[in-house]
Amino acid sequence: MAQKPLILVTNDDGITSKGIKTLVAAVADIGEVVVVAPDSPQSGMGHAITISEPLRLNANSIFGKIEAYECSGTPADCVKIAKNFVLKGRKIDLVVSGINHGTNSSINVIYSGTMSAAIEAAIESIPAIGFSLCDYAADADFSHVTPFMQKIIIETLTKGFGKHIALNVNLPNAKATIKGFKICRQAVTKYKEEFEKRTDPMGRHYFWTAGELINMDNGEDTDEWALANGYISIVPCQFDLTAHHSIPLLNSEWDLS
Amino acid sequence: MAQKPLILVTNDDGITSKGIKTLVAAVADIGEVVVVAPDSPQSGMGHAITISEPLRLNANSIFGKIEAYECSGTPADCVKIAKNFVLKGRKIDLVVSGINHGTNSSINVIYSGTMSAAIEAAIESIPAIGFSLCDYAADADFSHVTPFMQKIIIETLTKGFGKHIALNVNLPNAKATIKGFKICRQAVTKYKEEFEKRTDPMGRHYFWTAGELINMDNGEDTDEWALANGYISIVPCQFDLTAHHSIPLLNSEWDLS
Repeated sequence: MAQKPLILVTNDDGITSKGIKTLVAAVADIGEVVVVAPDSPQSGMGHAITISEPLRLNANSIFGKIEAYECSGTPADCVKIAKNFVLKGRKIDLVVSGINHGTNSSINVIYSGTMSAAIEAAIESIPAIGFSLCDYAADADFSHVTPFMQKIIIETLTKGFGKHIALNVNLPNAKATIKGFKICRQAVTKYKEEFEKRTDPMGRHYFWTAGELINMDNGEDTDEWALANGYISIVPCQFDLTAHHSIPLLNSEWDLS
Repeated sequence: MAQKPLILVTNDDGITSKGIKTLVAAVADIGEVVVVAPDSPQSGMGHAITISEPLRLNANSIFGKIEAYECSGTPADCVKIAKNFVLKGRKIDLVVSGINHGTNSSINVIYSGTMSAAIEAAIESIPAIGFSLCDYAADADFSHVTPFMQKIIIETLTKGFGKHIALNVNLPNAKATIKGFKICRQAVTKYKEEFEKRTDPMGRHYFWTAGELINMDNGEDTDEWALANGYISIVPCQFDLTAHHSIPLLNSEWDLS
């Protein structure tokens, strides 16, 4: 393309995280970059939006010459305010979200703020990619991921992947030897959770929760399989939640007369 | 069934809302009811979960003899703590969420706390239904909805609708003449949003957002069509976000070698 593509960068770990710094640097060579990211960590926010409170939006010089704003809202709020205020009237060519500190493979996509930003862009018919690293550490090593992300971004900008879709890309951590890319489906998994009851200094109860991911899906076409076998997983995601296969069943078996 | 089914009730408007009171009364005749609901309104929370803060859970006598708890978390948190702590070791036969004050049809499902609770149950292979009324008022008139909800609940308990699915049920408001039920798909819609910039007493900017739903989908098989034509819409929803139709396309057209 003659003109540089306009790329919006956001995330859910907040504008000061190491992951978004790596992502901004990766796209700075490819397009004109504008950052609108949360001013505080928003992990686990799912597709939350801010309805009953006002939003704050302030310019931030953290990325030097790159135009950047921190927002008090969720990742989905960041995309909305970027499209409708910061970049109002301009065509956004791509939204990239991340790099998340921690995986968003399989069922994690449902809880993911990173992916909610990408899906919010997909709703607006903007191509979007959520990137996540399989390493939860705040100082995670992102040194290996840039060329892989750039390859996916270039394919997206030149070939695309259809309307109303966002890619969920998960990258093996720095200890893995990356074998390549796999286009996958979301594995069927769930969390097994324990709630630990504690007592605070005032004698009142509170609970901490910790979960372990249970993989119920051995499919070699899944994101979990790809990551376990050294591949970068790419899952195209949609926001139509309709279980289409269930509609004829309900129509034939249920009596709603 | 010989034994009364165990029914968990939750919502996103909070345990004191009129909608959940109507829903609890509707299921009290059908099964053994336990309520675990947010202690404050959680609208627009999407599939948010509480990760980095502890949760509070306290017994609440608001429903008289019916066992009830208020939780400081999101609707998805309520289902998790109900399953793994309050009702640990017991089989939950049904989760019902709502009745939401306001529609959760079409794209609203993505932002909906009501539906996130239902989908969280579906992940746990528990049949689940989210109910929403097309009336946002806190004192909305729910007097007409009980027999319709009970019909859907009885069909669910006796015939079911398949694993890993939650129903998104939207009910016309009290002014409508309800013609019956329609099994639907989620209409393709989006919000057109405006951000209004204001200045606070300290001279700092803040933003209010207001959105208008744009329907881009004329399909008579959609939830929006059903509601506009006086029907109760029932959309079976899943949590597999994979855009399966996009996978062969990506595999054939992209070069990721």
